[in-house]
Amino acid sequence: MSIRSFQLGSVLVLVALMGRGGALSPALQAQTPMLRANGARMEERILRLAEFGRDPRGGVSRLAFSEADLQGRAYIIALMRQAGLTVRVDPGGNIIGRREGREPHLPPIVFGSHIDSVPNGGRYDGVVGVIGAIEVIEVLSAHGVRTRHPLEVVVFAAEEGGLFGSRAMIGALTPEALQIVSQSGKTVREGLRAIGGDPDRLAEAARRPGEIKAFLELHVEQGGTLEAEGVPIGVVEGIVGINRWDVIIEGFANHAGTTPMNQRRDALVAAAELILAVNRVVMSVPGRQVGTVGRITAEPGAPNVIPGRVQMSLELRDLSAEKIAQLFERIRDEARAIEQRRGVTITFTPIAATAVPIPTDARVRELIAEVARELGLRFLVLPSGAGHDAQNMARIAPTGMIFIPSVGGISHSPREYTRPEDLANGATVLLHTILKIDRGALP
Amino acid sequence: MSIRSFQLGSVLVLVALMGRGGALSPALQAQTPMLRANGARMEERILRLAEFGRDPRGGVSRLAFSEADLQGRAYIIALMRQAGLTVRVDPGGNIIGRREGREPHLPPIVFGSHIDSVPNGGRYDGVVGVIGAIEVIEVLSAHGVRTRHPLEVVVFAAEEGGLFGSRAMIGALTPEALQIVSQSGKTVREGLRAIGGDPDRLAEAARRPGEIKAFLELHVEQGGTLEAEGVPIGVVEGIVGINRWDVIIEGFANHAGTTPMNQRRDALVAAAELILAVNRVVMSVPGRQVGTVGRITAEPGAPNVIPGRVQMSLELRDLSAEKIAQLFERIRDEARAIEQRRGVTITFTPIAATAVPIPTDARVRELIAEVARELGLRFLVLPSGAGHDAQNMARIAPTGMIFIPSVGGISHSPREYTRPEDLANGATVLLHTILKIDRGALP
Repeated sequence: MSIRSFQLGSVLVLVALMGRGGALSPALQAQTPMLRANGARMEERILRLAEFGRDPRGGVSRLAFSEADLQGRAYIIALMRQAGLTVRVDPGGNIIGRREGREPHLPPIVFGSHIDSVPNGGRYDGVVGVIGAIEVIEVLSAHGVRTRHPLEVVVFAAEEGGLFGSRAMIGALTPEALQIVSQSGKTVREGLRAIGGDPDRLAEAARRPGEIKAFLELHVEQGGTLEAEGVPIGVVEGIVGINRWDVIIEGFANHAGTTPMNQRRDALVAAAELILAVNRVVMSVPGRQVGTVGRITAEPGAPNVIPGRVQMSLELRDLSAEKIAQLFERIRDEARAIEQRRGVTITFTPIAATAVPIPTDARVRELIAEVARELGLRFLVLPSGAGHDAQNMARIAPTGMIFIPSVGGISHSPREYTRPEDLANGATVLLHTILKIDRGALP
Repeated sequence: MSIRSFQLGSVLVLVALMGRGGALSPALQAQTPMLRANGARMEERILRLAEFGRDPRGGVSRLAFSEADLQGRAYIIALMRQAGLTVRVDPGGNIIGRREGREPHLPPIVFGSHIDSVPNGGRYDGVVGVIGAIEVIEVLSAHGVRTRHPLEVVVFAAEEGGLFGSRAMIGALTPEALQIVSQSGKTVREGLRAIGGDPDRLAEAARRPGEIKAFLELHVEQGGTLEAEGVPIGVVEGIVGINRWDVIIEGFANHAGTTPMNQRRDALVAAAELILAVNRVVMSVPGRQVGTVGRITAEPGAPNVIPGRVQMSLELRDLSAEKIAQLFERIRDEARAIEQRRGVTITFTPIAATAVPIPTDARVRELIAEVARELGLRFLVLPSGAGHDAQNMARIAPTGMIFIPSVGGISHSPREYTRPEDLANGATVLLHTILKIDRGALP
């Protein structure tokens, strides 16, 4: 049963459980008996890290480049050193903890994630991939396993809001991006300096294709699919493409008391029709595509004035750029009909935040699935609806992502939570995927 | 053909043209031959007044209590004196220009409107009623007509945003209202002082029921009904009641990329359904009722986050408070269904701006209709969807309102416009209604 048959952009596919009652397969037992991550230890460290930037409203506000970010990074560096890693910060602000391999000329296997958070965010997003990576090192060391390849644990700088650290690692952090003012109030340039990077030597942070054997990222799903299906492991098919538009609806502002209903050109009523059309069109075809109107303003915005102008956002995400284009065409057709019906004009302006879909490496996906089967863990193949550092790393190295369940599908919220057994499952799958790659499964 | 048969809250009723080709009826000719307002003179004065507070974006910004308001008031006072009126400013800031009658013990017939504007408003709203009132005085004087009753032209202070001057005139301007900060930046207390009123002697501004024979206000319709029907005169049935609610829709904010469509509790999608439900419910029954959602905010308000909370306004207006209550019940039922369907909660909080419907005086309505018929002018009986000083005056005196067409139904906009012939028709109807009342038509 191969997952090579799955197409990008396909509907969710459930791959059957292949193991027997959670026991390790003979093959895995033979290679690496009983190597398992410790979920309790991982949870303890995740909660400890959450003290840095703890938000009085709950959760954490550990914005990249902030004081809390610096404190969190210091804690992680200490954990890395304690695990025997040699730690450096590259010019892109990424923390890299290295463990040499038996064959030092081989390219490293790299794995990790990020620890910066959104404002009032959760304790698991990114953190699970960092703590999980350190867990892998500790389990290997505890069992005296020395890999052939060097291993590198990476904590990417400033993931939220721009994937800046991983952009630096692939040589794609531009001078313009350095001038962006991050949510900490610092520009990216200032922020990188504050965390030990060097914005003037970014070229030295860049890795070239071939320099990295493989990149793996363990992450919470941030959605509710794994939990709803009762499945512990997600094999990430790819990171969805994102298209965004500014939508402007022009009607005519007028007195809400004196303008009869049938003489109105109410931009907000038209916007309401368009919001429902987006929802209907996106849900009208099978698949995991999503469409969202997240921002809206109506002008002049008084209770007693008919809105003359509405500005809103439209975002479509899918693993297939073609499907996004098709959905948008249908939404635009609906908009034309609304224009006629409501006497308004509707314009869509694409905005720069557009991202193309990035598939993960098919061979790495299959390895992750194989490990899950051998561990007796059911898994789903599913897209990542969120952006991740993995989407940058996929441009220079064979890349895979492992998802574990987010309780309630809640993310970017103080209510983010993942159970310790799921933490352990995720890190254990990560560990054995690394070992398979190390033993030559990715020629 | 009596208009007594019209019910408050009834649908729009077209009263047939009774005159013959615009000629005066013998009855009117016998009484007051050829008294007609001069539309060209009125328009010239309206445009002259629009110089005070002229807005660079077009139209006028002559906010109550502002420098422009003071200049405009000075211009009007000069016109009043030129027309032979004795002018005073009462403690409520209202300009009152008086012309004595032949029987000085009789109560005055009062008529007028306001000259303050909304920000970036039009040149006709309120102004037409003031210039029209002065026109009446000039035409009477030019023809040597001396009325039995004293006549008073009134320019109410600060109509926009609070009807403050007319509240003072009926003894309803409270100490709390004096503390409101008006759009000029001044409190009402400071503002009244600035225009020559005296907030410490408001009791002297108050007129008691019976002290005024009748109150009449000529005003632009501000809606598009008269123009759409090709009818020059509106007989105002009453000023609609206004009910407003703050509507809060609570869903659940979540990641727009990772949350499948069928697991969302999107507050903005629910709000869109409610906005369309308001529109549908209000339009589902005959009548002139209106319903508007004019203000909306969605939180957190980012393109990549599903809105978790929407706050919006709901406003319903009608001449019948009972009908408003029935419409609201139906909207609330629709909200219950949306709650179920979308997994959100919707709460409606009534807010203080609620105004009860105020009917005009049935006898005065009939007099206005009679004058229109005698002048050969078609008319409609229709509610006023906007608030006016007349709604306060109706509490102490038999009150009537005359509407003339607003081109395109546009109001509170630089594009506000009323044709000179309609100005003349309105002021002529006002003049002859005053004369009928003066001659005993309102015992």
